[in-house]
Amino acid sequence: MHLAVDGYGADPNALRDEDLILRFLDTYPDEIGMTKIIPPQVYTYHGKKAEDWGVSGFVLIAESHISVHTFPDRGHVNIDVFSCKPFDVSESLDSVRTTFSLTRTDVWTLDRGLEYSSARQAYSSMVRERVGLVAKASEGDG
Amino acid sequence: MHLAVDGYGADPNALRDEDLILRFLDTYPDEIGMTKIIPPQVYTYHGKKAEDWGVSGFVLIAESHISVHTFPDRGHVNIDVFSCKPFDVSESLDSVRTTFSLTRTDVWTLDRGLEYSSARQAYSSMVRERVGLVAKASEGDG
Repeated sequence: MHLAVDGYGADPNALRDEDLILRFLDTYPDEIGMTKIIPPQVYTYHGKKAEDWGVSGFVLIAESHISVHTFPDRGHVNIDVFSCKPFDVSESLDSVRTTFSLTRTDVWTLDRGLEYSSARQAYSSMVRERVGLVAKASEGDG
Repeated sequence: MHLAVDGYGADPNALRDEDLILRFLDTYPDEIGMTKIIPPQVYTYHGKKAEDWGVSGFVLIAESHISVHTFPDRGHVNIDVFSCKPFDVSESLDSVRTTFSLTRTDVWTLDRGLEYSSARQAYSSMVRERVGLVAKASEGDG
């Protein structure tokens, strides 16, 4: 399973905090039952434009990885949780939302490595969600 | 854009070759116009089951990353090319297929960071492809 999260409205102080992101990458694999194969690494990057800066972090877990890329001046963060083992997507999302105080997320789940999974049907899904709002478009509430 | 590739039927010698994977992660960002912020890193991992081993590598590029996870005994590889800048997905795929001699790929493209992209509509797509075969299921050739 590969969970990809784009988070918006995040706390800029969390997004610029190398220690917080390192701690997240260090503890999160254990929380969701994964095994780190190297310690996490975190770097602060500054691009050509003033607002193009942020913290990028990475931890390798058994044959997969977790990554974080933050944009403090935009309140934006990209998170990937990719594991060959199944994990609880809902719990993982809650943890990510809490860590970075996200108010909105775009979420993709990709069922990867299908040849070695019980699910034979390739699929992917994508969900947009605003924290505190329940989307009811399909029920004609619009 | 985030390009996620699951490759099958790969050359096991390529998949076990740390030097080849390091070289790929070192040169590929330049090929597709991206900027490395740290040198690539590559590790060989051995799991509990004999066939659960392989090479994992990643390189951080400006606010995004490229990663490779190989399973030599299965001829399988997971590759992610994630960049905040647009890039030529078709060229990137060709390069990946050639590097690892893939005979089949599952490919996902995720349009991430939409708030900062000209495309306002969230989307993702997933394509299964066999090299040398043209899928015509929708034309009733089955």
